[in-house]
This record gives sequence, C-alpha cells and structure tokens, in this order.
Amino acid sequence: MAAEGRLQRELTWGDCDPAGIIYYPTYYRWMDAATWALVASAGYTAARMRAEQCTMPLVNAACDFLSSATFGDPCEVRSHVSRWGRSSFTVTHEILMVAEARVLARGVESRVWCRYEHGPGSPLRSEPIPQEIRAALGAPSV
Amino acid sequence: MAAEGRLQRELTWGDCDPAGIIYYPTYYRWMDAATWALVASAGYTAARMRAEQCTMPLVNAACDFLSSATFGDPCEVRSHVSRWGRSSFTVTHEILMVAEARVLARGVESRVWCRYEHGPGSPLRSEPIPQEIRAALGAPSV
Amino acid sequence: MAAEGRLQRELTWGDCDPAGIIYYPTYYRWMDAATWALVASAGYTAARMRAEQCTMPLVNAACDFLSSATFGDPCEVRSHVSRWGRSSFTVTHEILMVAEARVLARGVESRVWCRYEHGPGSPLRSEPIPQEIRAALGAPSV
Amino acid sequence: MAAEGRLQRELTWGDCDPAGIIYYPTYYRWMDAATWALVASAGYTAARMRAEQCTMPLVNAACDFLSSATFGDPCEVRSHVSRWGRSSFTVTHEILMVAEARVLARGVESRVWCRYEHGPGSPLRSEPIPQEIRAALGAPSV
Repeated sequence: MAAEGRLQRELTWGDCDPAGIIYYPTYYRWMDAATWALVASAGYTAARMRAEQCTMPLVNAACDFLSSATFGDPCEVRSHVSRWGRSSFTVTHEILMVAEARVLARGVESRVWCRYEHGPGSPLRSEPIPQEIRAALGAPSV
Repeated sequence: MAAEGRLQRELTWGDCDPAGIIYYPTYYRWMDAATWALVASAGYTAARMRAEQCTMPLVNAACDFLSSATFGDPCEVRSHVSRWGRSSFTVTHEILMVAEARVLARGVESRVWCRYEHGPGSPLRSEPIPQEIRAALGAPSV
Repeated sequence: MAAEGRLQRELTWGDCDPAGIIYYPTYYRWMDAATWALVASAGYTAARMRAEQCTMPLVNAACDFLSSATFGDPCEVRSHVSRWGRSSFTVTHEILMVAEARVLARGVESRVWCRYEHGPGSPLRSEPIPQEIRAALGAPSV
Repeated sequence: MAAEGRLQRELTWGDCDPAGIIYYPTYYRWMDAATWALVASAGYTAARMRAEQCTMPLVNAACDFLSSATFGDPCEVRSHVSRWGRSSFTVTHEILMVAEARVLARGVESRVWCRYEHGPGSPLRSEPIPQEIRAALGAPSV
C-alpha cells in the first residue's frame, strides 16, 4: 500500500491575498514541500539529496481548488505516490482542514528523479528512482 | 480574435531554488499577475476591481514545465482567454524567452468572475463576465 | 516577565536561493508569522483580529544575519515584546537552530496597533494596545 | 558621484496581504532584486556572477515603512551604494511612487562580496569588491 505523508501548515498572513484567503500559488509551495518531506521520510533527506546530488524537477503540476482557506486556518497536506515509472513518478496531494473534514484542494505533481552531472546548475540526467524509496513508499513490485 | 497580453519578468535571485533554476510556484505567481494585467488591459484595473468589489477566484490551474529558466533570464508571459463561459473563463499562458524562441512553460487557469457581497472576506457570488471585458478580449459574439 | 513565543519552521526548498541557503526575506516572513502567533497566544487570534477589524502595520523592521540556514534545517523563532508604547510596540526575534545552539539571525519589528475604520482597505487609526495583550505578554504595569 | 539604479515594480495581487496593502517582506524582495540589478549594471550580471562563483550575502538589512502601496500601484526602487569597505558595502534604497512623489519606504542592506570555494553550497570567503564595480558605481578613489 502507498505510504502517506502528512504535512501541517497553518495559513499565515503572508500566504493570503487581498481577498483575505489563500493566494493560490501557496498551494503549490505546500505541495512542493510535501513531496520533499515524503522523499525525506523514505530516507532521502535534504542533506542526502544534496550529498548525492539528486533532485526531482517537475514535468507538470495541476490543482483543483475546492474551498478557500482563510488566515489562521490549520491545514494538512496528505500526499502519496500515485504513479511509478522507472524515473518519473506522480505525487497526488489532498489539502484539507482535518477538524472540519473539509477538502480545500486536490493536486498532482509529475516529477523525474535526476542527478546533477557536476553539482547544482550543471546538466541533469534522469536516473531510476532508488529502490529504497520505492520500497518505503509502497511501489508495487515489478 | 483573442487579444493577447504580454507581461515581462526577469527571473530574480529570490524566484530561484537551490538548483539555480526557477522555483516552480513562481510560474503560477507570474500567471496570476498576467491574468490580472490582461483584465486590467480590458478596463478592469486593480483600482476598479476594488471599487466594484469584483474578484476572480480560481477553480483549477495547471502547467507543463518544458525548459528551465535560470537566474537573470528575461522572460515573457503571453496570455489570452481560451474559453469563455457565462461567468467562468480559462486563460492560457505561454511563458517564453523571446530572444531564443524558447518556450519554458505552458499553463492554464480556470476562474470565475465574482463579486463580494459586502467587501473582501464576505461571501462571493458569481456574475456574468462584463460585456466590456468580453469585447476587449475578443470573446466570440453569442 | 515577558512571555516568549516559539514558532517552528523547517527550511523548505522554496525558502532557499541559488546559493542553497535561506533567501533572506524568508526571515522576515518568519518574523511576521511569529508576531501574529504571539498576539494570537495572547487572545487575539486571526479570527478575532478579523472580527474586531484590528491589524498591526509595521513602522520599521531590521535584522542581523549571523549564520545561514540550509535547506532542511529545523529552525525556531523566539519572540517577545521588548518595548511597550501606548499603541506602538517592538517585537524582538531570535532565530536559531536549537539542537546546535546556533543563532541564525536577530531581528526587530516595530508595529502600531490599529483598527480599520470600515474593514480591510479602509483607513486605519491607531488604538491603545488591548489590556488583555499587555497582561498576557508581560507588559510592565504603568 | 554614486550611480543610481532604478528598478520598476508594479505591486501584484500576490505581493499584498489581507489588509489589501503590500506584505512587508515584499520590500525586501525588491531591495534584493535592486541590488543584483545594480551590480549587473556595473558589469557583474547574473551569468557572470555564476561563472565567477561570486555572491554577496547579507550581514544586515533594515527598512522604515512610511506609506503603504496598494495592489496595482506602480513603484520604483532607487538604489545606490552608500558605504564602501574593502569587501563590505551598504546599499541604500528608496522605494517610491514617482508620479505622486510619495516615498513608501527607505531601506539599507549591508553585504559582503564573496566567492564560493567550490561552487554553490561550498564555503564562502570574502574578497575585495572588484575595481570594475567600484568604478562603475562611483566609489571614491582611495
């Protein structure tokens, strides 16, 4: 079964727009942070990603906005890998206010597992997603 | 024909991530700004939107990332309304580096034209997109 | 004694710049969030601030940057009111990595307690800081 | 005489907060961009900074907020180097709405000219500010 990541976020003053609700790119900031946290939970922490010169650029991202969070609202991002390729993978995120069982947004990110040839800024080449991550996050056996 | 908006953006240091390239939510920040600019070009400036208590919340946004901008790159967002409903509309954006004819990203935003019942923070109700905007941006006659 | 607020922040990918360290305006985002959290802890939550149409605009902010946080670092913002005027107050923040007893930054924000005349966007007038806040946060008796 | 840089910014929807005015860390984003632009105007473009592995971390930043910009306002950041050390320098910024001769904010940034030992993420060592920059930006002769 797919392992689920959970990331807590309380909507700050600066995450909101003049309508008093969440400025929509904030959802993408949260989804990005949630994916890095999910990968960290599978053993690839920020420090290890840096040391092994790995990164995971985006191919596509999309989000449906169902209900608006307001300044101060406690939110949760629930994330799991919903599609496993050899190098590419898709993370599906649900952002909700748990206490009220209210779903705010549902999004997806498609990414590619990559390594820098010579550190940040140098060209990237795709690599197979590490077996350790597949196992930790419940990829189906091949 | 659909009127096209053009918004210039030079990629700043703070718009980038540790990979040295654009942090992807930045594209959504730009698309949001481009849509507000497009609507302003059709007569609904920020000041008028505020005075008439209009806004245009998102229903959905999506983006394909084709090529990465690097710190300092001059970018352009080209935007037009690609679908006209009664209250809802879709804006299609192409983000490119003009000098190199390089497309960085292609995105869409689906929005609803709304009015606050009693100012920012109060409930929203959808309204028909103003005729002035439809005419200025080249909506097909009904 | 002054009550101290503590806000946890893990440095995200998007909070960093191409040097791989914190993009410095992020510290101000954190200080802003820390001040709102401090005031919330004294009874003036986001919802109450909104209901009573209170806000607290900045007069000045400053920060010394002592050491850089890197992507993934767990940080803490410790905040207290260091100066109490009738309407104005100064919040002093220390941002640190607790486990290593490493101070990253020290900042101050000077703000004024205000009320909107007719809701967000309308003119502001300063008001005395509520007694409830002074008591909760340890203002000296007058 | 000190050369002055000028950077244009129109306040976007996402740069504002629920009060409908500029979210204050936005001023620091602008000052940071203005300093990079000033240095670029003196020959050290983003591409050259990257190629020569130079950067200019902050030691301190401060800002007085005098008047609030509102969504849609056209702003200008005027910047010059107000103090020259061997490696350190201070940039003074004035942010204003030119048409109305209204000053929004006045800020300073103190920075150190540095080079990475082995590229982004590696340790930094300070270096003398290049003579080319001093000359272009009007540093007094020594």
